[in-house]
Amino acid sequence: MGGDYAPHSTVVGAVMAAEEYGHEIILVGPKSILETELAKHPRVSNRISIHHAPDVIGMNESPVLSVRRKRLSSINESIRLLKERQVDAVVSAGQTGAAVASATLQLGLLPGVDRAGIAIAMPTPRGITLIIDVGANIEPKALNLFQFGVMGDVYCRAVLNKPTPRVGLLNIGEEETKGTNAVQEAYKRLAASQLNFIGNVEGRDLFNGKCDCIICDGFVGNILLKVCESIVDTVVQLFKREVTKSPLTKIGALLCRPALLNIGKDTDYTEAGGAPLLGVDGNCIIAHGSSNHRAIKSALRVAAENVATKVNREIVKEISKYKDRDQAAIG
Amino acid sequence: MGGDYAPHSTVVGAVMAAEEYGHEIILVGPKSILETELAKHPRVSNRISIHHAPDVIGMNESPVLSVRRKRLSSINESIRLLKERQVDAVVSAGQTGAAVASATLQLGLLPGVDRAGIAIAMPTPRGITLIIDVGANIEPKALNLFQFGVMGDVYCRAVLNKPTPRVGLLNIGEEETKGTNAVQEAYKRLAASQLNFIGNVEGRDLFNGKCDCIICDGFVGNILLKVCESIVDTVVQLFKREVTKSPLTKIGALLCRPALLNIGKDTDYTEAGGAPLLGVDGNCIIAHGSSNHRAIKSALRVAAENVATKVNREIVKEISKYKDRDQAAIG
Repeated sequence: MGGDYAPHSTVVGAVMAAEEYGHEIILVGPKSILETELAKHPRVSNRISIHHAPDVIGMNESPVLSVRRKRLSSINESIRLLKERQVDAVVSAGQTGAAVASATLQLGLLPGVDRAGIAIAMPTPRGITLIIDVGANIEPKALNLFQFGVMGDVYCRAVLNKPTPRVGLLNIGEEETKGTNAVQEAYKRLAASQLNFIGNVEGRDLFNGKCDCIICDGFVGNILLKVCESIVDTVVQLFKREVTKSPLTKIGALLCRPALLNIGKDTDYTEAGGAPLLGVDGNCIIAHGSSNHRAIKSALRVAAENVATKVNREIVKEISKYKDRDQAAIG
Repeated sequence: MGGDYAPHSTVVGAVMAAEEYGHEIILVGPKSILETELAKHPRVSNRISIHHAPDVIGMNESPVLSVRRKRLSSINESIRLLKERQVDAVVSAGQTGAAVASATLQLGLLPGVDRAGIAIAMPTPRGITLIIDVGANIEPKALNLFQFGVMGDVYCRAVLNKPTPRVGLLNIGEEETKGTNAVQEAYKRLAASQLNFIGNVEGRDLFNGKCDCIICDGFVGNILLKVCESIVDTVVQLFKREVTKSPLTKIGALLCRPALLNIGKDTDYTEAGGAPLLGVDGNCIIAHGSSNHRAIKSALRVAAENVATKVNREIVKEISKYKDRDQAAIG
């Protein structure tokens, strides 16, 4: 039920994933609403079922309170199905805070993990850059930032097919003395780790392919993400405004159309799919609130990849390496 | 002496400003080096002079330490000239941290101001958006964020010709319960103020013209600024890569050229000029480290505007309004 275009787009996306990937999907939400939507797609009825959840959490409700009070909300019920192993993964385009709270409260964290982080695979001209965290934890401690690095590294290797991911710490300068205390301490931990840590990276390094995984706090990460999402629209607007000023530039734009469509495709976040909430004991994928059906389908694909690659098991293994080592680096 | 292209571009930019705006300019740095550069421009010799400062602070030196140790650095000597009223304003493209430290230590803060903030006038498709702070203060308290708002509002009115600037607080959601404690408390102060405070704004609001002045901490602001600067390059690269794939799109790109040049001009930070360090008792303009001669010229223009509009006097007046009011809003 979550997201700006639910339940219509959510159901269409689910139907597409069921058809294209052969997923078995349980739609969680108010039964009568979902039945009406699903009736439009009779072909996939054998692979899509409905689990009734009468409550819906709004985008502006307090995450923790709403999760506690609205026990039968679609997000709570989805996570319960995951906890009871009735499903392998959950995708939600609802309120991020509620999804994080429900997942953390019901599933708990993976052994050794101190805080969960949302990792997003950002499309850039030089390929995918993973950014972790984009909104689960707005004031992380150094340990959390360090663990974001470990989890991001695992995710790049296991899911994004990057065998030796370059991990960078987002900061306001390259020198290790830059940034807040938490960031400076995280730098030390990362430098002492077995990760392929390339040091601090700056805002400009988001797009230039300098690293595969960028670590940041959820406040900066969330703001950055929204800036990046708005860039494509901004550039398209600017371009339209300028080329329509003369007939010649209009013709030029028409001729450029195939190139422009390619650029649009390369920078389309709906192709990149959902963002895994890494660190919780279960596969939870956060889809964008404004997900259309294609974005929902992509998020379901990402969910299946997370399940197939057993990324959580790998995270537990990697995190366990640093229990002593990490304390030694700091102590 | 500061900046990637100093002293050459710095001197050329100064010469251009002297010629175009009629500024009287004092170049501060090692005398013999500056004499050599200046000798290339005999026409303006009557309006440009040299003040000898033998020391240079590198980009990687500790700001406070280097400012204390290298007493005769070009930044320290420039600020001293300002303090002694031998000049009306200082422009530096050197290390931002050193410029902030030198200005704060030598000039002190304006009455009532708790911390200085760097304000940058960012060109967007909908006009200029002022962002404060972009790097002076990486962990501001609520009071600092609030005062950034007051100073940004004054700057928009006095210098940017925006009579009733809309002021927004950068956050990860629109609700006032979002963000860190400092951000939440700043929200309350701003809401209780006389500013035209439009509430929290998000990353996407940087470019959509929703507000005229965006308040943020210097950590987020600096990272955002560098992301934004890299966007134009990224888009240009993408465009070149795609249009060169076929002869037709190549021709299209040629026809679009005038439109593309206009876009480039609209988003060119070298036209926007330097960023005032607001809150210190004197007009200090921080120019980008990679300033070319045009950016230096623009920064000198901004410096003169700051002087002419007496923006600092206005800041003192506005800040003084909130002494009691502000405490009442919190208590």
